[in-house]
Amino acid sequence: MSMNLLKAGYPVTVWNRTPARAEELVAAGAGLAKSPQELAAASDFLLSIVSDPPALEEVLWGPHGAMQALKRGSIYVDSSTISPALARKIAAACAERGVRFLDAPVTGGDWGAKKGELIFMAGGDAATLKEAEPVLGVMGKKWFHLGAHGAGQTIKLAMNLILALQVDALAEALALVTGAGLPGEKLVEVLQSSMARSGVLDVKAPNLLKGEYVPSFPLRLMHKDLGLALDLANQLGVPLPATAAARETYSYVKGAAREDLDYSAVMKFWKR
Amino acid sequence: MSMNLLKAGYPVTVWNRTPARAEELVAAGAGLAKSPQELAAASDFLLSIVSDPPALEEVLWGPHGAMQALKRGSIYVDSSTISPALARKIAAACAERGVRFLDAPVTGGDWGAKKGELIFMAGGDAATLKEAEPVLGVMGKKWFHLGAHGAGQTIKLAMNLILALQVDALAEALALVTGAGLPGEKLVEVLQSSMARSGVLDVKAPNLLKGEYVPSFPLRLMHKDLGLALDLANQLGVPLPATAAARETYSYVKGAAREDLDYSAVMKFWKR
Amino acid sequence: MSMNLLKAGYPVTVWNRTPARAEELVAAGAGLAKSPQELAAASDFLLSIVSDPPALEEVLWGPHGAMQALKRGSIYVDSSTISPALARKIAAACAERGVRFLDAPVTGGDWGAKKGELIFMAGGDAATLKEAEPVLGVMGKKWFHLGAHGAGQTIKLAMNLILALQVDALAEALALVTGAGLPGEKLVEVLQSSMARSGVLDVKAPNLLKGEYVPSFPLRLMHKDLGLALDLANQLGVPLPATAAARETYSYVKGAAREDLDYSAVMKFWKR
Amino acid sequence: MSMNLLKAGYPVTVWNRTPARAEELVAAGAGLAKSPQELAAASDFLLSIVSDPPALEEVLWGPHGAMQALKRGSIYVDSSTISPALARKIAAACAERGVRFLDAPVTGGDWGAKKGELIFMAGGDAATLKEAEPVLGVMGKKWFHLGAHGAGQTIKLAMNLILALQVDALAEALALVTGAGLPGEKLVEVLQSSMARSGVLDVKAPNLLKGEYVPSFPLRLMHKDLGLALDLANQLGVPLPATAAARETYSYVKGAAREDLDYSAVMKFWKR
Repeated sequence: MSMNLLKAGYPVTVWNRTPARAEELVAAGAGLAKSPQELAAASDFLLSIVSDPPALEEVLWGPHGAMQALKRGSIYVDSSTISPALARKIAAACAERGVRFLDAPVTGGDWGAKKGELIFMAGGDAATLKEAEPVLGVMGKKWFHLGAHGAGQTIKLAMNLILALQVDALAEALALVTGAGLPGEKLVEVLQSSMARSGVLDVKAPNLLKGEYVPSFPLRLMHKDLGLALDLANQLGVPLPATAAARETYSYVKGAAREDLDYSAVMKFWKR
Repeated sequence: MSMNLLKAGYPVTVWNRTPARAEELVAAGAGLAKSPQELAAASDFLLSIVSDPPALEEVLWGPHGAMQALKRGSIYVDSSTISPALARKIAAACAERGVRFLDAPVTGGDWGAKKGELIFMAGGDAATLKEAEPVLGVMGKKWFHLGAHGAGQTIKLAMNLILALQVDALAEALALVTGAGLPGEKLVEVLQSSMARSGVLDVKAPNLLKGEYVPSFPLRLMHKDLGLALDLANQLGVPLPATAAARETYSYVKGAAREDLDYSAVMKFWKR
Repeated sequence: MSMNLLKAGYPVTVWNRTPARAEELVAAGAGLAKSPQELAAASDFLLSIVSDPPALEEVLWGPHGAMQALKRGSIYVDSSTISPALARKIAAACAERGVRFLDAPVTGGDWGAKKGELIFMAGGDAATLKEAEPVLGVMGKKWFHLGAHGAGQTIKLAMNLILALQVDALAEALALVTGAGLPGEKLVEVLQSSMARSGVLDVKAPNLLKGEYVPSFPLRLMHKDLGLALDLANQLGVPLPATAAARETYSYVKGAAREDLDYSAVMKFWKR
Repeated sequence: MSMNLLKAGYPVTVWNRTPARAEELVAAGAGLAKSPQELAAASDFLLSIVSDPPALEEVLWGPHGAMQALKRGSIYVDSSTISPALARKIAAACAERGVRFLDAPVTGGDWGAKKGELIFMAGGDAATLKEAEPVLGVMGKKWFHLGAHGAGQTIKLAMNLILALQVDALAEALALVTGAGLPGEKLVEVLQSSMARSGVLDVKAPNLLKGEYVPSFPLRLMHKDLGLALDLANQLGVPLPATAAARETYSYVKGAAREDLDYSAVMKFWKR
C-alpha cells in the first residue's frame, strides 16, 4: 500500500513493529519514523494496518503510541480488521483531539494490495471519506461509505463470515465426496457449471484439492475475524449457528497446525 | 422436461401421482399411463423424478409399481434426489431384470427444466450414459459421468449442502449487519465487488433483502437434501459440523412456516 | 433378560441372529427356535431387542420373519431403540393380526439387564402394559406408561440425547481444562461438590480421565440413537442445535475408531 | 457474603457501584468506603465480586480504582468469573505491589452465598490460600486449590460450560418430547429413575416445565461465561462444538428477552 503511494508521488513516512519490513520502502524513498508517536506527529494523513485489536491498541495507546501525537485537523484511517466497538472508541478519542477518523478495513488480499486494487469499507463521516479519496484511490479501486464509525468493520466482519463459511462448506462437501470414495475434482467440475459457482470456488478449490495451503489470507486471522463477528453477534443477541460451528472447526486446525497456513487449510480438519 | 422431449419429436407417455399435473402434456400430445407399472411396461426409456426417497420407493415397489414391469434391455434414469444407497438398491434390482439404470439427479431448477438447460449428475455405466445422451441432451445442456451407481446422488447432495450453507451464510451475515443497525443492501453491494461474490448472491440476495421467498427450490426439499447428506456423512463417519448446524436452522423455519417457501426463507429464523 | 425369565420359572424359547449368543440360555433350559417365524408361532408373549431399525425390520418382515406368524391374542413387546414411526408401523401391523403391541425400550445397560433392574419406557395400550407387568417385572424394576404407540421410543430418544450431551459436555470441559494445562481430575473433584454433579459424572468421568472406553453402551449405538432423535426432531420441525453438534463429534470418533468403544470415547475427538 | 463475615465478627468495610445495595450491610454494622481505592487503602484482606471482566477492570484500574491503593502484604481475592488471562494480569500487577492475589470464583448461587455454603475454586499460591481459609470458611463450605493464577477461573468456566449444556440438553429433550405431543413431565419422571439424573434435573426441570424463569443465575451471566469459555478454548485451539452451538441458542434468548431471566430460560428458544 505504501509502495503504491510512493509510486504515485506522495511523500511517505513509515513505521513497522518489525523494522526489516520497512526496509524495502525506505530503499524506495520512504522516511522512517522511530515510533507510532513520531509518525503521527509528522503526518497530515495517517494510515494504520495491523493484525488484531490488541496490536492496534498498542500502536495507539502503548508507549510512544500514536494517539497522543495525532495532529489537529489531520485524517486518520485504520484499515485493520477490529471490532466496531474499538473503531468507535478510536473515533471518540480522535474527535477529542480534532482528528477526523475513518474505520476502513480492506479486502483484496496481498494481490489487491500490490496491484492497488483493494476495496475499502469505510465507516465515519462522508466528508472525511470524500477528502481521503485521492489517497485511497492510489491503493484501491473502490471505496464504500457504509455508515457511521464502526460500519466499515461491521460489513467487513460480515463479509469474512461469508468467506469462512463458503470455504468451510466446500471443505465439508469435499470431505463427504472423498469419504464416499469419489474424486473431489469431479465435484468441483460440476460446481463450476452450477449456481454453486463462486469466487471462493475459483480461488480456493485448487488449494483444497491439492492439500496445499500457502497463506494468502492466514487461517489465524480468519479465525480471529470469526471471533470478532461472533463477539459482535452475541453482544447484539443475534444467533449465528453455522458461523459458530465453523469457528470451532477453524479452531481445531489452528490448534493442530505447526505452521502458518491459509484459511483454506480448514480442510485439514478432515485429514487426520 | 417431458415437454421438451415432445417438442423434440420424441413419443412420450407420462404418469403423475396428481393427474392434473399431466394435463398440459397430454394436451400437447403425450400419452397417459394409468400407473407406473403400465408406463414401465410400455417404455424403452423410462425417466422418473419425484420429491423424496419414500415417493420413489412407492413408484417403484408400491402397488402397480414400475419395477416389476421394466422391460429387459430398456434404460431407466431416475432424476430424483435420493440417497446413494437407494440408488444402488434400484441399480441392483434393475440389473436382476436386465435393465440398465442411471442415477442422474439434476440441477438448474424450474428455469433450467423449461429451457432444457438442466445439468445431469450421473452414476452408473458409462456406456449406458452414452446411449442416454441424445435424450438427456433434449432436457439438459450438460451431463457428467461421476462414477458407479450412487455417484450422481453423492455429488448432488454435496452440491446442495454447499448451496444451503451459502444461503445460510448470507442470511447470518445479513442478520448480523441489520442487527447492528445497517442496511443489508450495503453488505450485498460490497460483496458483489469482492471474492465473496457467488451465484447464490446474484440469485438469492434479492429474496433475502425483500423478505420474499416465492419457491424456486422449496425449503422442505432443501431440508430433506441436507438430511440425506448428513445421513450419508454419518454412515461414513465424516463429521459435517456447519452443515449440521445449518440443517437445524432450516428445520426451525420449516417447523414455523405455514406455507411453501423457497429455501432462502431460512432468513426467517432471524425475523421472529 | 431371558436368563432372568428362566430363573423366575418362565418357559422361554429364544432365537438370535448369532446362534452362539443363545448357547448359554439353551444350556440353562431355554428352547431354541430356528427362526423369528418359528418363535412367534410358538409364543404367547414375544419380546424382541435388536440393535437398530433395519435389524428389527429384518426380524419382523424378512425371510422367516416373525410378523406373519404372531398369534392372535398374543402380546408382542419390542425393547429395541427404534424410531417412533417404526413403532407405530409395527403396532398397525400387529393390530391387523389381533396382536397387542407395546414399544418398550429399556435403559439400565448390561448391568441393569443382568440384575433385572431395567427400566421400561412403554408406549401403547395401558391394559396391555398391565397384563405384561408380571413378565416385565422379572427383567426390570420399573415401567412407565408414557402414551400411545411410539411414546416409549420418543422418551427413550430424548433420554439418550441427554446422556450423549452430558458426556459430550464433560468431554468438552475436560478438553478445555487439560488444554489449559490443568489436570482433569481437579475438574471432576470440584464438579462432585456442585450442582453439576450427575449420574454421568459418577459413571463416565473415570473412563474419560483414564482414556479407557470399554463398551458399556457402544458409541455406534449412541450415534445411531442421536440420528433417530434428530430425524424425529427434523420431521417435527424442532431444531436441536447442540444435539446436532454433538452428533457430528460422535460421528468423527466413530469414523476414526477401529474397535468397538463405549460412547464415552467421544473424548477421543480431542486426543488426536 | 459480607453479611456472613459481619455475623462472624469480622470488621467489614464495603463499596458497591450501586450504593443502595450496600445499605443493608451498613445497617448491620459495615463501614462504607467512598471508592474501591479508599477500600483497598484500608484493607488487609480485600475481596471483589462483580459481573464481568470490564466491570472488574473498572474497579481495579478505573478512576479511584483499587489497584493503586492495595497495601503491601495484604491479600486480595477476586471471586468474579473472568478470563484466566485477566486473572493472571491482576496477579502480575499485585505481585509488583507486594500483594498476594487469589482468583477464586465461586459456585453455589444466591442460596449458597446466604447460607455460607459457597464453593471457592482458587488459583494462586497455596500458602496464600491457607492464610485466606479462615475468611473463606465463613462464606463457603469448601475451597479447592486448583493450580497457579488463572486455574480457578479455568475450572469455573469449565463447570459453567457443563451446567449450560446440561440445561440446554434438557431443553432440547423437552422440546422434542412436547413437539411430539407428549407431556414433558413424563420425560422428567423417567429421567429421575435413570443415569440421566443430575443436579440440574432436580433444580431446573421444574422451571422448564412451568415456563417460569425467575433468575437464580441470570441468563446474561451464563451467556457471558460461555463466551469466556469459548474465548479461552479458541485461544488454546481446543474446539468446543456443542458449547458453541449452545451459546448461540442462549444468545437468541438473550436477544429476544425483555426482562432478566434465569439461564433455564434457554427453553424460550423453542417457545416462539
